[in-house]
Parts: sequence; C-alpha cells; structure tokens
Amino acid sequence: MLQYRTAGESHGRYMLAVVEGLPAGMPVRPDFADEILRRRRTPAGRSSRMSMEDDAVDIISGIYRGRTTGAPVAVLVANRDSRIDKDIPPITAPRPGHADLAGIAKYLLKDARPVAERAGGRETVARCVAGALAGLFLARFGVDVLGYVLRIATLPLSMRVASLERARALRNRSKIYSLTPKHDPAAEKLIESARRSGDTLGGEFVVRAEGVPPGLGSPVQWDERLDARLAAAIVAIPSVKGVEIGGGFSLAGMKGSKAHDAIVPGAGRAKAPRRVGNYAGGIEGGMSNGQPIVLRAAVKPVPTTGAPRVSVDVRTGKKARTAAERADICVVPAISVVGEAVVAFEIARAMREKFGGDTLKEMESNFGSYIRALRRLHSKR
Amino acid sequence: MLQYRTAGESHGRYMLAVVEGLPAGMPVRPDFADEILRRRRTPAGRSSRMSMEDDAVDIISGIYRGRTTGAPVAVLVANRDSRIDKDIPPITAPRPGHADLAGIAKYLLKDARPVAERAGGRETVARCVAGALAGLFLARFGVDVLGYVLRIATLPLSMRVASLERARALRNRSKIYSLTPKHDPAAEKLIESARRSGDTLGGEFVVRAEGVPPGLGSPVQWDERLDARLAAAIVAIPSVKGVEIGGGFSLAGMKGSKAHDAIVPGAGRAKAPRRVGNYAGGIEGGMSNGQPIVLRAAVKPVPTTGAPRVSVDVRTGKKARTAAERADICVVPAISVVGEAVVAFEIARAMREKFGGDTLKEMESNFGSYIRALRRLHSKR
Amino acid sequence: MLQYRTAGESHGRYMLAVVEGLPAGMPVRPDFADEILRRRRTPAGRSSRMSMEDDAVDIISGIYRGRTTGAPVAVLVANRDSRIDKDIPPITAPRPGHADLAGIAKYLLKDARPVAERAGGRETVARCVAGALAGLFLARFGVDVLGYVLRIATLPLSMRVASLERARALRNRSKIYSLTPKHDPAAEKLIESARRSGDTLGGEFVVRAEGVPPGLGSPVQWDERLDARLAAAIVAIPSVKGVEIGGGFSLAGMKGSKAHDAIVPGAGRAKAPRRVGNYAGGIEGGMSNGQPIVLRAAVKPVPTTGAPRVSVDVRTGKKARTAAERADICVVPAISVVGEAVVAFEIARAMREKFGGDTLKEMESNFGSYIRALRRLHSKR
Amino acid sequence: MLQYRTAGESHGRYMLAVVEGLPAGMPVRPDFADEILRRRRTPAGRSSRMSMEDDAVDIISGIYRGRTTGAPVAVLVANRDSRIDKDIPPITAPRPGHADLAGIAKYLLKDARPVAERAGGRETVARCVAGALAGLFLARFGVDVLGYVLRIATLPLSMRVASLERARALRNRSKIYSLTPKHDPAAEKLIESARRSGDTLGGEFVVRAEGVPPGLGSPVQWDERLDARLAAAIVAIPSVKGVEIGGGFSLAGMKGSKAHDAIVPGAGRAKAPRRVGNYAGGIEGGMSNGQPIVLRAAVKPVPTTGAPRVSVDVRTGKKARTAAERADICVVPAISVVGEAVVAFEIARAMREKFGGDTLKEMESNFGSYIRALRRLHSKR
Repeated sequence: MLQYRTAGESHGRYMLAVVEGLPAGMPVRPDFADEILRRRRTPAGRSSRMSMEDDAVDIISGIYRGRTTGAPVAVLVANRDSRIDKDIPPITAPRPGHADLAGIAKYLLKDARPVAERAGGRETVARCVAGALAGLFLARFGVDVLGYVLRIATLPLSMRVASLERARALRNRSKIYSLTPKHDPAAEKLIESARRSGDTLGGEFVVRAEGVPPGLGSPVQWDERLDARLAAAIVAIPSVKGVEIGGGFSLAGMKGSKAHDAIVPGAGRAKAPRRVGNYAGGIEGGMSNGQPIVLRAAVKPVPTTGAPRVSVDVRTGKKARTAAERADICVVPAISVVGEAVVAFEIARAMREKFGGDTLKEMESNFGSYIRALRRLHSKR
Repeated sequence: MLQYRTAGESHGRYMLAVVEGLPAGMPVRPDFADEILRRRRTPAGRSSRMSMEDDAVDIISGIYRGRTTGAPVAVLVANRDSRIDKDIPPITAPRPGHADLAGIAKYLLKDARPVAERAGGRETVARCVAGALAGLFLARFGVDVLGYVLRIATLPLSMRVASLERARALRNRSKIYSLTPKHDPAAEKLIESARRSGDTLGGEFVVRAEGVPPGLGSPVQWDERLDARLAAAIVAIPSVKGVEIGGGFSLAGMKGSKAHDAIVPGAGRAKAPRRVGNYAGGIEGGMSNGQPIVLRAAVKPVPTTGAPRVSVDVRTGKKARTAAERADICVVPAISVVGEAVVAFEIARAMREKFGGDTLKEMESNFGSYIRALRRLHSKR
Repeated sequence: MLQYRTAGESHGRYMLAVVEGLPAGMPVRPDFADEILRRRRTPAGRSSRMSMEDDAVDIISGIYRGRTTGAPVAVLVANRDSRIDKDIPPITAPRPGHADLAGIAKYLLKDARPVAERAGGRETVARCVAGALAGLFLARFGVDVLGYVLRIATLPLSMRVASLERARALRNRSKIYSLTPKHDPAAEKLIESARRSGDTLGGEFVVRAEGVPPGLGSPVQWDERLDARLAAAIVAIPSVKGVEIGGGFSLAGMKGSKAHDAIVPGAGRAKAPRRVGNYAGGIEGGMSNGQPIVLRAAVKPVPTTGAPRVSVDVRTGKKARTAAERADICVVPAISVVGEAVVAFEIARAMREKFGGDTLKEMESNFGSYIRALRRLHSKR
Repeated sequence: MLQYRTAGESHGRYMLAVVEGLPAGMPVRPDFADEILRRRRTPAGRSSRMSMEDDAVDIISGIYRGRTTGAPVAVLVANRDSRIDKDIPPITAPRPGHADLAGIAKYLLKDARPVAERAGGRETVARCVAGALAGLFLARFGVDVLGYVLRIATLPLSMRVASLERARALRNRSKIYSLTPKHDPAAEKLIESARRSGDTLGGEFVVRAEGVPPGLGSPVQWDERLDARLAAAIVAIPSVKGVEIGGGFSLAGMKGSKAHDAIVPGAGRAKAPRRVGNYAGGIEGGMSNGQPIVLRAAVKPVPTTGAPRVSVDVRTGKKARTAAERADICVVPAISVVGEAVVAFEIARAMREKFGGDTLKEMESNFGSYIRALRRLHSKR
C-alpha cells in the first residue's frame, strides 16, 4: 500500500518523509522536490525570512541508479532554523488557535513547546515531499493535479479554468498562486495592511485533478471512499477548517433536477457516455467518475499574530500575553501547495490499489488493460 | 482498536454491522438501536413506505448475559424490502448523482445494480447501529452527541443551542429534526412542493458533541488528527458534499485577531483556563480542546427524482431515461441521524485510543485518572 | 485489501465470517464451503457429536446472481449447539491449556465463560469459510493448497508428495487426513487408547501450496514478508505451538553449503532458472520464489481431557476440579483443515496486493501480463 | 498504536528507524541504542570487519530535553560501508538462500542488487534501534526480555535459566551469547572450522520475557493474538525458518494430561493461582498468562558462503558462480539480539494497546490500576 509517514519538529534538524509502496523503476532525480518546496516557501504573505531560506533535500534510501527500487524512499529536508533544545523558549502562555492548550492537556504539560514543535506548519514540508513523489508517479498516467488560491480574506479570485496547463501557467505567475495574477496587487495590499496592523488573514484554495480514470476509490466501505479520503487529507492540513467536493455547500440549496450532472451519449463512435456539468466534483458513490476532481477548502487566518494575544500562564493560572513572533501574515498560498501535494498523494494511493504491480512497468501495463477494457465496455454493443 | 465494518445490500436480506474493540462489561440491551433506527426512518421527506417499516435488530455475537465481552458485536438488521436477485431489475441507464456510472466503469459492468445495491443509503442503517453502540459507551463518560438539521433547501433553521438536553428535546419534537419545530410547516411545505413537481431537496445538518475531554486525536501524524477523521466520517456518508469544523468557511474571511478563541483564566480556584467563543469548533492542532465539537455538513438533493432523468443506455450507447422510482424527497433529516452516529463512533474510537483498557471498568478508571491529572495540572502552581 | 474478520461464540447462534476485498465477478455457489466444513468436522479423533452435526452456511451479502460484486461477503454458519446464555454453565475452575485463566485476568472476571466462548475452536469454522472463498479465487490462478497430517502423537506419517492431486486423493481417503491411509488403523488405535484413558493427543500437520507465482510478499518491511504472515496465520490457530518453513529447525544443524537450494539453468529454451531441492520451503527474502510453499506446524494435545484436571476455583481461591466434558481426543486432522484455509487466505491476499484490479477479469489480465513479463525476462538475452 | 517502519539499504548512507506511538515523557539518552548495536555487531562468527565498525546513532526527532514528546522518534544509523550506486557491483548470478532470485522475478530485474540491498541483514540494525526504545519502555513496567543462543550448528547449549539477571550476566560473558560461556571454545572451534572450509553455520536461539502481565494480546481476532504477532516478528527476521512457543514441537508427542501447566492455589493470602510448569511458554488463548514468555527459533546457515556457489547468470541463462564475498560464518548470536529486540517491541506494543495513555505517567497509572484490580480479583472472595 502506498503510504507516507513524517517525522521531525519545526526547529529540529530535519523534517523527514518516509514514503512506502511506490512502484519500482520510477525515475527520481535528486532535485525532484525542489520546485514544490520553493513554491511552498516563497509566495506573498509569508514572513520575509522564508524567502531567503532554501530547503536542502536529501534522499537517503529507496533509490538505486536514479530509480525507485520498491523499498521505502526516505527523504530528509534540513531545517535552516534548527536549534538545540535549550535555545527554544518554552511556551507557557498557550496561543489561541494553536495546538498549545489542547496539547498541554493531552500530554499534561506546563510548556506547550514539544507539542507546538510537531503541530507547526513546518511539518507540511514532508507532505510536499511525499506529494512530489506522488506527482512523478501520476504524471506517468496522465493525471495532473493543480492547487491554487481562490480567495484571500475578503478578496474573491477566479475559479475558472480553461485548461489545467493554462491555469498552471497563470498560477505560477501569481505571487499568491491565484489564476488571476492581475489581482495580485489587490491581494498584496490586503496582506500589507494586515501586517501593519499586526494581524493575519485566511482564505480559500482549490485543488483540481484532471485525467483521473473512473473507478478509483470505492463505494464498498466508508473508509475506502475517495471523497472521504480526500476530505481527510485536506482537513488534516493545519489551519484548514472546511472542505467541499464539487458544488459543495451550494448544492444544499439546489433542486435535485438541477444538481446532478446529466449523462448523455458520447460523441464519435464507441465513446463512453459524457457528462454535462461537474457539480459532483468528479466523485460519485465514493468513486472517481472520470470528470475533473474539484475540492475547495477554507483556511483560517494564521493564529500567530504580530500583536501578542491575551492568554493565561499555565504555570500560574494568571493572565499573560502570548510571545510576539515574527511570522507569516497569510499562508493560504503556501497551504494551497500542500493541498495539491496531499491530493496528489491520495489519488496516487487509489491508483496503486486499483492497478497493483511491483514495478512501474507492470502498473502501466495493468492501467492500459483497464483503459482498453473500459473502451470495449462502451463500444461492444 | 475500536472499528466497525458493514456488509449487506439495499435489497439483501440483512444489513450487518460488526463492531470490534468495545470494552468488555458494557450493558447492551436487545433494543439498543431501536431509537436511532426509528429516528433515521421516520422524518418528514422520506418516502411514505419508510414510515411503515420497522428495523428488526438482532445481536448475534459479543454479548454475554447482557454485557459486552470484548468480542466483536455483530448485529443483523433485517431488510423488509429484500428481494432475491432475479426480482431486482438491472440498472442499464445510470442515474446522475448515483454511484451507477462510476461503478459501471470500476467493475466493467453492463448493469449498475450490484454497485447501486451496496452504494445505496440503506447501508447507513449499519452505521447507525455502530453509532448506537458508541453512544452507549460515550454516555458512561459524559460525552453527548447530537445531530440536527440546519437547513432544508433554501430554508435556514436555527443553529443556536442553549443546552444539549434542551436541543435534543426540540430536535425530537421536530419532524425534520431541526431545533425549531415551529418551522416544521414551512419545511414540510417545501418538501411537499418538491414532491408534487417530481423533484428533491438537499440541505445542511450539524453534529455537536459536548463533554468531550481535551486531548483526543493527535497533532502527530496527519491521519491521527481528530478533525481529519471526523471530516472523513462525515463526507463518507452518501450525499454529503462538504463539511466544516467550527467557523469553517466563514473563518476564511476573518482577521486573525478575531478568528481565534481567546484563552482566559478559569473561574473559581484551580480551574483550567477558559475559552471565549468556539470558532475552532472544539478542535485545535488536530485534538479536542475541551470545547463542544461542532461540525456542519452539506447534503446534496436526493439524486433519484420522481420524474425520470435523461441518461444513456449502457448496452446501446443511446439516449435513455432513468427508471422512475418512488423515493425520498429529502433525506437531510435522516442523514443528520447518520451524522450523529458516525461522529459518536469516531469520538468513541479516539477515547479507546487514549484510555485503553479491556473492560469498561478499567477504562473508567483510566479516564478518571486522566481527568484528575488534568485538574492537578491546572491547580498545582 | 483482501481481509477477513470473524464474529461469534462457540455456543452462540452463528459463526460469522466477513470477507472484504474479493474481486468482483467471481462465481460463488451457495455450497462453496460445504466441503471444507465437512472435512473440518468429521475426521477421526473428534467427539462423536461432531459427525452428526451439519454446518448450515448462509451467504448474506456480496453476491449478485451467483457472482461476487466486490462488496463484503458475509457468511453465517449456524451453530447446532447454540444455547441461550443462562443455559451455559459458568467456568469458575479455569482449565489448563485454555484461554480461561489468562482471560480471567484480562477481563477481570470470576467466570471464564465469555472468554472461552470466543477463544474456543468453533471460531475456526469462520476461518474455513474465508479460506474456501480464497480457494475459489486461487483456483483461477492455478494455485493449489493442501493441508495434511504428518504425525499423530508419537506416530509419524509420511510427508512425501508425488503430485498435489495424488496427495489430495490419498488425504481424502484417510480418516486422519494423512497421505498414508494405510496407517489410519494405527492412528485410530492411538486415539482410541487415549480416549479410554481419558486423555488427548497432539501431532503435526503440513500445508503445501503449489503453483504460487514468484514475487508474492515482500522483503521491504518486516510485516510484509510472506513467511511472517504465513507464520502468524498458522500460529494464530488455537493449539498450534510452532511453525516451520521448509527445512525449518533441521536447517539449524546444516552447513551453508548444503542448506540452500541450488540455482541451475532452466530446461528447454528461454526458461527461468530451476532450483534443486526446496529447503527454503518456497520462500526466500520474504517472497515466494516459485517453488512449492511448505509449512509444518505443531499442535499441542487437546487441553480438555475426559478426566477432570486439577485447578482452582477463582471464586474461593481453593482447589477445584475442572468440569468433565465430552470432547475431542485429537484435533490435529481438523486443524490441518484450518491450516489449509488460512494459508490459502494469506496467499490470496498476497495475490491481490500484487495483481490489483477490482474484477476477476482485470486481475487475470494483470496476472497474465506478469507471467509473460517473467518469461520474457528469462528469454530476452 | 506503537509501530515502527524502517528504511535504508545495506550500502546506503543510513539505516533509519521511525518509531511511532511511544508515550511522551520517557527519558531517552543519545546512546540508548549503543549497547544493543554493539551486541549485534561483535559476537564470534561475524566477519572480522564487523568488530571494527561502530554504529553512529543519531536521533533526529521526537525528543525534547531528553524525553519523548509523543511525536515519531526517527533514528539514523550511519553505514560505515556506504557506497554510491556506481561502486556497488550488480548481482547477476543470484545467490541461493538469498532474496536474489525471487526478487529478480518480483521486480523483473536483470540485477538483483536493489533487492539484495534492502533484504540484507543490515536492516536489522533498525529493528534493534526500535527494540532498544521498546526496552526502555518495558523497563518502566518491570518487563525484562533476554535473547540468547541455544545451539550453534550441531552443538546444543543450555536453555536453563536460574534468573533472568543471572542469565543475562552469563550471556554477556559468552562470545556466542549462550548461557554457558564455558562452551564458547567448542562453538568457536566449530565456527573456525567452517570458516576454513569456506562454509557457514546456523543454529537456534531463545527469547525469554519475564514480568509480562497477564492479559496482553487477545483471543478475539486471529491477528490480535500475541503468539501470532510474536511468531510473525521472529519469522520476519532474515534467516529464521521456524519458531516455537513454549514446549513447541515437543508438545505434539505428549499426552494432554501432561502437556498443560497445572493451576494450583496461590501461596500466602489472597494470591493469584499459580502454575506448575510452563509448557505454554507464557501464552494461552493468544494472551500472556503471567508466566515467562519463551520462544525458540531456528536460524538457517548464512547463505553467502566463502566458497562461491553454483548459480545462473540471469543475463545469459548460463551457468555462473556467485561472487565470493568476505562474510559472516555464523550469525546466530547476532540474530538472537535482533530476536530480543523484536520480541521486546511486540510486547511493548501489546502493553500500549492495553494500557493506553499519551504519557508515560498516565500509562504507569493505568498499569498500576490494572495490577491492583487483578490483586483484588483474586483476594475478594
């Protein structure tokens, strides 16, 4: 089974991703994760410190002569801001919106630091590494996944996508990873204004996957449903507080006669039935239906604000202020990158389940057989 | 580990839930699931057939002299509408919004019936059974979970909760399981109007859990986070297309200085810090934080409308109409019951992980120790 | 993933097996498990009661028009000896060799009955059902699994196998499921003699699997190794106290130059290398190597002897005698059937992992591709 | 859940162990694994190279101020013999007894190197690291686990254990980790003789665990049984070909009246019933029964012999010789260390399941409650 585990703390020496279950024979270059990590690191809204950093990726296992072997691929990403324990201040005034107070309870602590170190956003570096490996893999099967920003605070941005290629080009030109780079200045102004007032912003992002074959996931058991797994992967990103598939909440107000994507005869000869619209967001009955998968997620504003927040010192029970920190103003663009990564990973996982095989070659052969069988299904009449 | 698996088809003889990992020594009466199944069956909006049915629950294992033994509890629920295979018509014109077309691809079928039988809403009977067992269990620890309807189509209903007890009383008086029974007529009118026009409706529901101790779930690994697990459980309910935790999508537009629940000194002596507000919906850092857990979900309108829908006959590739069926107009109330069940189950699962023990007695003792340790944590200064 | 769970108690109304992950489209007849259950029930050595019983198998889900659908296959087996709780005497004098005393501790009991009900050998009925489904599945891929008895108490029996077909014929003619029916009288005499002295017997059995393709299981992670999984499945059968793969313990005393199966060029043109000998028992590096898989297991004598045993009354702490019970004298033949079932299941599981696919057709196609690729591997030079 | 995953190749830069699920607050010193790794590295029989090496252990996560935090503990062990890919010769003549030929099939290779790198014994370094963490943990609960050698090739050694402490002292004085250091010269002579003839040796080892509370593991589901899990962990060690619990294979020939450990009243007042003998090896009904857990395992001789072996060149299909390698003559002592590690880990895992808790403190409290409840159980009459 394709899966990943991560280890590491925000100020530890390394973040670590261990990815198991990749097929053997897949080419992986040493710099495979550079692009996604750079994208995660450098959008507008992050603390200035970020843009100077550089994530040094080190593959320590699972690759032989440039290809996966089927063994676990373990990847270390060095933390430039690592500190030995005694240089990290304790957190005795838990910060609202962080893991601090819940973690103090869970682990019966007087210092939230050990929890905060693990719960911090830095860990998503490892998820991006896993997602980058999944992306290499998906590319072999024509599956393409794109994350982009849909809204910065109160500023809505476009969701319209001509083609994924075009959308990617636009997204890559935008400092906030929206599909409308021309609105960057407005977004940056919002961010700058928040920064000046010691505040932070949230927003929304979309992840869209195209080329996903129908029949991934399963209607059979609740925890095998593709929508459930994607929702879990998205909501598991720190700061995400909501997720929609396709029409999402807007479907709640629609009539049944309008809310479902009509099925009409395929064009040309022997084609699979076509769909009109994509309210389903590419998933019906817990399975991919061959349409683009579309997910939308809500990101709460960064809980660490420039201005200190009211809290309680857990050593005394008295009022205290949270420590002031130089931090990010808006992480929605960065989180959209993580969203892209985790969706890629879940789709890759569902692909591995359906197509099996120990090598990329076997898997490609199995995939090809399925696609041909699908075609035959809709042409033999 | 507490977990459940289900088996059974919509028109099979039985739905089956197998629940593993319940502590031994927990009293379970033969009628333990009657109340939840009745609630699932009988709200306004369901097909008239439903209200006449009765779900016969049969516990076939795991109980000795009225108490759990620690062995799997298997529960059969007889289907009153069971039919042998040859009496069920094939589904050759896949219905938009159902599992049909994706399932036809996944399993390379010319008849979607076998997929539809498993993907249908009837399977949620088994989830309710699992949830009822979880509910018995949670009651021993003072955890209370309530599902209710927040919106029927375009009709918004109240989210305000004085106390869970009071909310339950109101919910139980409402035919659509809202907290404002006085709005039932308006909702019923909407439903009736949809019925007359051969259409269906969606809506939203809330699940709220009170008394959840802090520290359930974990910030440590993405798939251990309580929010991710709850989101998966909710989205895995057929027809759910979105989920929010706490403030959800509305947080995306808020400033960081407002969007997080302030931490203030606890009242009295030796109390844990209190929170002001609950934008977090009871979960921070992937853990319960001791506040009520609040989830909101979007339900799409029932895809099977009274009027047939345009589709394609997969045997011919030509246009065809879906078969007309007498069906539900609005399942939001029924799904709110399923939502309550699956949230109860996930919280129970997180409780089992934290408190361990093979018997209810051990678990209660372990729970008590933790609660006392929490109190000491905040009083020893 | 192919997996099964079981539920039910020795004197409950049903044993239940729920098998998930079978490919869709596999024919399953209502009597699919009759043969294996009859074999489990009727060998020499079992209590006379057994031979009169009959296991009524009832498939309640996962089959549509005689074929699997991909949904869980749940199977009920009625217990002829079911009793309601109040008719089962408590077990207050724990029986040595049973789960009683350990279970009393685990669940803090004064009556071991609830544990004994689940830990009893009756539960293996459900494993046989799961194994029968796996067997149907394996037959499609030319994999054949045979369990047989190698030793009854001090009487050694033959391990030699000409062909699996021939071995099966012999095994089926033997009342104790050995490959030498002519030794049945000697074994029956031993059993009869034990019966008269109120005693019981153990023995050994073998499970042999032929036609297993190379490359199942994995060297990659300890819990993915085929040998580890097979050992777990065998040792998990109640009364099994040891397991060997291939040469097993005898290899410990051999020299390295003799203990490994030489690799020599394949006969004919383009053949895979052949092996000389099978000390490895068909598994190297945690993977099947294409040779027959051979496992040997030790079964302790039945702990419930006709003569009562010395014990302690857990209510008083005083000496007590275990209750006398009419029971089996030797269950080695019956357990060899369970061994066959669980080995078949584990091999089927490894097949599902390697070949993927949602339907039998896909899986067969994927399997065929792999076998062809293997041939090419050894012929393209 | 307590679990570990490993990554890394024999000639890679690092072996990696990632241990998840340790309770928070457990002290771990940087040198925690030095003793076990030294023991694995230096017994008689290993290649001379080994004794000069040194395993540099580097904890990269999960520890804050010297204690576990509840986050994954990732540990790197540098390989002194690491080589970049191009310096490792391919393996085109698969070695009998290794993963080579099966791996060539599984991954459709012409060079077994990538499989051999992962399947090699070096990976057990990571299992020892995981076992060392488990050992720290078990020590808090009075559980002590000892692995020792029972036989080198044809030379049997003692199994008698006065106390585990005494046994450990003896074991630590023996160069081959037996309990009778006085027999070391005989064993070393055997090893030396094998070395001179270019051959290798196998043997047997025992793992014994004392202080294990009753009730770990479960009779409820086959894969939860403690014996099944221990058997899997032992058999999963490369070169192990058999495992016994307690009396093991010798029980197969015994009468039921002799083969089970009598239950007699406990001494003193209010004591738990005592057992006479330990044929069960500490496990009944898949649960620990409070007696010492005793496992015995067979190790095949090292497959890589000093003299090359007959094989086939997979590129040509022609006869070829395996490459000569300087290697270990007998790894039974080293593997006994790995056996100790994996048994410790599995027991720790079962402890975590029964006692829950996020912190060591909670777990200790829960453990104490259970032990007191056990005492009450047997004293309240």
